[in-house]
Amino acid sequence: MDQISLDITNLFAPIVGPRAGLNEEEFKAMAEPSRQALAAVQERRERDLRWLALPQAEGVRDEILTYADSVKGQFDNVVILGIGGSGLGMRALQTALNGPYHDLEPQAGLPRLFVLDNVDPDLIGEFLETNDPARTLFNVISKSGGTAETMSQFLIFRQQLIEAVGAEEHARHVVVTTDAERGFLREIADREGYCAFTVPDGVGGRFSVLSPVGLLPAALVGIDIEGLLKGADHMDERCRGAEFMDNPALVCAAVQYLLQTNHDLPIAVTFSYSHRLRDLADWYAQLLAESIGKRQGRDGSTVHAGPTPVRAVGVTDQHSQVQLYMEGPFDKWFTFLAVEQSDHTVTIPEAYGDIPGVGYLGGRTLNELFAAERDGTRVALTDAGRPNMTVSFPRVDAHTIGQYLYMMELAVAVMGEHYGVDAFDQPGVEAGKVAAYALMGREGFAEEKTRIEAGMPTERRTL
Amino acid sequence: MDQISLDITNLFAPIVGPRAGLNEEEFKAMAEPSRQALAAVQERRERDLRWLALPQAEGVRDEILTYADSVKGQFDNVVILGIGGSGLGMRALQTALNGPYHDLEPQAGLPRLFVLDNVDPDLIGEFLETNDPARTLFNVISKSGGTAETMSQFLIFRQQLIEAVGAEEHARHVVVTTDAERGFLREIADREGYCAFTVPDGVGGRFSVLSPVGLLPAALVGIDIEGLLKGADHMDERCRGAEFMDNPALVCAAVQYLLQTNHDLPIAVTFSYSHRLRDLADWYAQLLAESIGKRQGRDGSTVHAGPTPVRAVGVTDQHSQVQLYMEGPFDKWFTFLAVEQSDHTVTIPEAYGDIPGVGYLGGRTLNELFAAERDGTRVALTDAGRPNMTVSFPRVDAHTIGQYLYMMELAVAVMGEHYGVDAFDQPGVEAGKVAAYALMGREGFAEEKTRIEAGMPTERRTL
Repeated sequence: MDQISLDITNLFAPIVGPRAGLNEEEFKAMAEPSRQALAAVQERRERDLRWLALPQAEGVRDEILTYADSVKGQFDNVVILGIGGSGLGMRALQTALNGPYHDLEPQAGLPRLFVLDNVDPDLIGEFLETNDPARTLFNVISKSGGTAETMSQFLIFRQQLIEAVGAEEHARHVVVTTDAERGFLREIADREGYCAFTVPDGVGGRFSVLSPVGLLPAALVGIDIEGLLKGADHMDERCRGAEFMDNPALVCAAVQYLLQTNHDLPIAVTFSYSHRLRDLADWYAQLLAESIGKRQGRDGSTVHAGPTPVRAVGVTDQHSQVQLYMEGPFDKWFTFLAVEQSDHTVTIPEAYGDIPGVGYLGGRTLNELFAAERDGTRVALTDAGRPNMTVSFPRVDAHTIGQYLYMMELAVAVMGEHYGVDAFDQPGVEAGKVAAYALMGREGFAEEKTRIEAGMPTERRTL
Repeated sequence: MDQISLDITNLFAPIVGPRAGLNEEEFKAMAEPSRQALAAVQERRERDLRWLALPQAEGVRDEILTYADSVKGQFDNVVILGIGGSGLGMRALQTALNGPYHDLEPQAGLPRLFVLDNVDPDLIGEFLETNDPARTLFNVISKSGGTAETMSQFLIFRQQLIEAVGAEEHARHVVVTTDAERGFLREIADREGYCAFTVPDGVGGRFSVLSPVGLLPAALVGIDIEGLLKGADHMDERCRGAEFMDNPALVCAAVQYLLQTNHDLPIAVTFSYSHRLRDLADWYAQLLAESIGKRQGRDGSTVHAGPTPVRAVGVTDQHSQVQLYMEGPFDKWFTFLAVEQSDHTVTIPEAYGDIPGVGYLGGRTLNELFAAERDGTRVALTDAGRPNMTVSFPRVDAHTIGQYLYMMELAVAVMGEHYGVDAFDQPGVEAGKVAAYALMGREGFAEEKTRIEAGMPTERRTL
């Protein structure tokens, strides 16, 4: 069984220096709180943290596979209408598990995938002009059906569909993923006769990639969802009983907490040395930021907690961000994502043997160069006193991706316990939503509109 | 003349609160240092900061247009082999000025664009399998010709080309952008008879987008490079003589410096409320991080300076990062990028009038929704005490993009003066390069290899 591994050597003070590196005592002291945090999280597994048990939801998996099979070959395009957790997971899966040129040269029988997770009129307008709705399946994803962005998109593409294929036929082009019973989108699905999948209770948006939210579109574009779930199940198993030192989710949670709290490193960089793994960093950025970025602790105190997730891609960002990472403030730590075995081997041909700065490359492989740059950067950051750990993927496949997704979800849930915050709400996005509703003139928000307009300074400083 | 504008109202303490907001005194006190910094930068315009005068390089522009015209219609694909500043500027231009589906549905006669700024074997291997070299023009970009990533790619694609079209014909498929006289790539171009453009002296990678590095590929994919240069020229003019308060580059530099230094906000978020402007944030991230992220001050002192640039996209990241931005630590400030006039207007059709959470959207436009969400988020962040400014683009076109690029380049040069660092070197990337050379077995690096291997802990902590 290929499993992902963690190398945490370079997090510790003897290697990386005492300025930012962990010491043995504080690390060991996390064993007991970690055990307790894990117990507290797992205790809610059957209750309100149902996402923990998604790897075992085989019935749902089979329904998805049956549906995907039934529409196979009928559509050239799958379009996700969804935002936040409804888009980021699937985009990460697509980038990791389908080739980078999947949409340009789709494999026989597989549709292209578009994640329309914005309402910028220039993006949606252009898509309306470019895309043929008659060859497209729209997957509308919103648990509540009240997400303004997603529902606006739905209204727009529904109309385009009806104009293109007729009112009756259009229902075949829509599949929704929403609450089992409640909400506007469930009501619409019932009324229109759309095929519908369920976002189970106890599965928040950012913890939903292994539910139909991520699995349905994944299956539609040919991703091995069985492998994903098996990988997640393997990680679930691995983390359920293991002691702190052998438990990757607990170690991830503990080091994140220690490095921010004890060592004042507010920035957590996911440095993906793999083009295919790069969008995992965006998925994790939501998971981490929305879960731990909280004003209030669970005890009611004001904490303003939360690491800031940053995404970097190697080798690309060696020529963009590494200068800052090497020499800038001691305010970051790094998680390298490394792939042990690429799917391709690319040899650099020999040429210009008489030109020294070029000739030495000939006969080597890009695989060697890529690994040397990754290891070189890691050595350099370590020498510069910057704590870093490495998550190694034996290869990039559904099984290892499933492991990673589950590991980080569990790690973030455990972090919530360490930071003392509720990792499963998002009160801070309400204010902006309310302001937007008010400015859009939605009923019931008139007072808020007046308040906003009164609060806006009439004299603005501009240049 | 449509010009971009800055609204800095929400940076100040009376609006955003004293915790992170600027006060009038410290802002005004920046007038004189800003004047001096600008003078110090402009004094080097004819000497070593030649990028300042790129907007006036009309001869180069005409050469590029002549070349682009000469190859028009001959290639389906333009591929950039380049990394860092050789790729980020062009990608930002492509995203901003060609449609989001340009590569899927190229406009008649225009090639697709691929920026291959990585050497991941899975990326390059897949591209080799997918792309037809006989229909492709490769633009190899490296000032020194010693960039290992770019030269490796060049060797690989050169061989593929020769196999596909023959040794003689292959030269027509390669155009290089490199030093005027020196370096490995210039030597190779001379030997092979490649068409070659020049990276002028005094134009570092991250300041090169308005040189042939950015302009040549831009012209090849139909971007209005004359408009770009005119926009940059307009900003150059606007910032040359203007006093601090009316000078957008000086204000950008001053507020960045004050917010980090006096208010302890190490993270600078570029929050693009435009799908088209989103990659400008990656371009700026390199510019800012490599220029200001420095260990040593110019006086030799150890400073570990540098803001950390972060990219966010509205509305998408309202559902990912805004929770953290609203409630997390007071360690960030925000630059909104806003577009006043979109190219598309998209109306939301009326439907489901009896479903309250959906019906209110009908009859409105996505443009209204997008603007309401942007303004709503800005109000909410302001109310939460988070300093923010807004850069408004009257519309997204070559002229406004040219203005923005030049403004930020100049701002970063001025920041170098405020922070007291050399904004034009990048000593911190050398260590990683040397380590990579050593691990690749390049001649002359054997000692370094021994040192690295000796320094690597033999006992690693893994799980």
